[in-house]
Amino acid sequence: MASPFARRFTVEGGKSVSLAKIDPRDESAFESKEKAKAEIAKDAEAINQLQDCLYAEGRRSLLVVLQGMDCSGKDGTVRAVFNTCGPIGVEVTPFKVPSAEERAHDFLWRVHKAAPPKGIIGIFNRSHYEDVLVVKVKKLAKPEDIERRYEEINNFEKLLSDHGTRILKFMLHISKDEQAERLRERVTDPKKFWKFNPSDLEDRKLWPHFMDAYETALKRCSPAHAPWHVIPADRNWVRNAAIARIVRETLEDMAPKYPKPDGWDPKKVVIE
Amino acid sequence: MASPFARRFTVEGGKSVSLAKIDPRDESAFESKEKAKAEIAKDAEAINQLQDCLYAEGRRSLLVVLQGMDCSGKDGTVRAVFNTCGPIGVEVTPFKVPSAEERAHDFLWRVHKAAPPKGIIGIFNRSHYEDVLVVKVKKLAKPEDIERRYEEINNFEKLLSDHGTRILKFMLHISKDEQAERLRERVTDPKKFWKFNPSDLEDRKLWPHFMDAYETALKRCSPAHAPWHVIPADRNWVRNAAIARIVRETLEDMAPKYPKPDGWDPKKVVIE
Repeated sequence: MASPFARRFTVEGGKSVSLAKIDPRDESAFESKEKAKAEIAKDAEAINQLQDCLYAEGRRSLLVVLQGMDCSGKDGTVRAVFNTCGPIGVEVTPFKVPSAEERAHDFLWRVHKAAPPKGIIGIFNRSHYEDVLVVKVKKLAKPEDIERRYEEINNFEKLLSDHGTRILKFMLHISKDEQAERLRERVTDPKKFWKFNPSDLEDRKLWPHFMDAYETALKRCSPAHAPWHVIPADRNWVRNAAIARIVRETLEDMAPKYPKPDGWDPKKVVIE
Repeated sequence: MASPFARRFTVEGGKSVSLAKIDPRDESAFESKEKAKAEIAKDAEAINQLQDCLYAEGRRSLLVVLQGMDCSGKDGTVRAVFNTCGPIGVEVTPFKVPSAEERAHDFLWRVHKAAPPKGIIGIFNRSHYEDVLVVKVKKLAKPEDIERRYEEINNFEKLLSDHGTRILKFMLHISKDEQAERLRERVTDPKKFWKFNPSDLEDRKLWPHFMDAYETALKRCSPAHAPWHVIPADRNWVRNAAIARIVRETLEDMAPKYPKPDGWDPKKVVIE
């Protein structure tokens, strides 16, 4: 399924991942920055065409999960890869602190509601993985409940996959230094103040614990039909180019087809 | 509120509108096609910046309603005006034949659910106006029920407006000849077959009745806080340029502001 390019970044289910050994500044997947940037635009346009066909076909959907520490570039990825598609046919769902109604259900309830319908590309900005990441690190649920969630997540993703949803998961892997740079921008540029919350610094202090939680989720929730990809994300162009190409290749592999006329004959239609 | 440019297209509430007197090929609002096309791109970028600020501010929203006969270019408008914004911060809701659950509620129930939350630009591709357009023309509800809907719509839009949603409604006004051209494309190009449904031809036969229903809705549902605009739509560039400019001017008039730091002092933040 995965192309040789995608395999560079793909986590193999059940195998341990050491994030410390993956360089967030790695750009070796690309020949040059200039070429990669030109490819992003081409990939985005190809994704746009493929999305039109996916929508016309109306039988399957694509779910793109974006996870990463604060400032890892989730919004920037969406803009670079999916703005050419535009808001028709692409649904972005940000997952924030759950509401009272959401907390009154199991952790997958709000996620299931946001699953992309047939024909649509759904993007999760954060996701159900928060429930085994921040919830675990900050001990917001009992250890035994968290422990059960990995399998529950796998079963849930299997359900989506069995019913025509292709799943791509991307961990945007930035370094702690790069996050510091980006946080400093947020507290310096008045146009970015709104993106900063003092509690972001608490998560930052828990960095190694977050990396541990990520490593566990990556290892335990990477079946072949819903693999995690670890994307070096210190350089925006590397992040965008890698994700654009993997999304494009995945849609090409899905190979949606424009449907035939449904119950009418193009040669017999008379438009008066 | 409305700029001199917008006023060219704005319906004045309570006054009769004769669609027959508005030329769908009119391009007199623009100096030249080339200039207008360049303006669309600039307006789309300005809308993108203003949307970012609207989102950051998080206090108000914008609702854009697109109505028009088949092939009038609703999707094309979204692409031209809102793809630069992309799917973050812009929600497109298409209103199709209501589902069983939707029919089990009043006609505004599904519409209210889709109203844009604070910070978001919501776009309705078709809308609650279907319930005084196709429903009226095809007699899918009792005349006295339809009669009551105009006021119910006005009250509903007043509610949204009172709670921070600015409302812009656009009727994409195409000629019957132009629709024929575009329908012929849909039955000729295999990539467009899926957009064609033989029932589209039934609506086409009822053209004068649809125009009557539009005229009534335009007249009765154009209060100053939620005006209809009739946009000549036979030429895509006129349609896109007019709507892009009106949306941009409206957002400029709303003048969203980036918020100040909420409970923290930019000078005192230390990022270690």
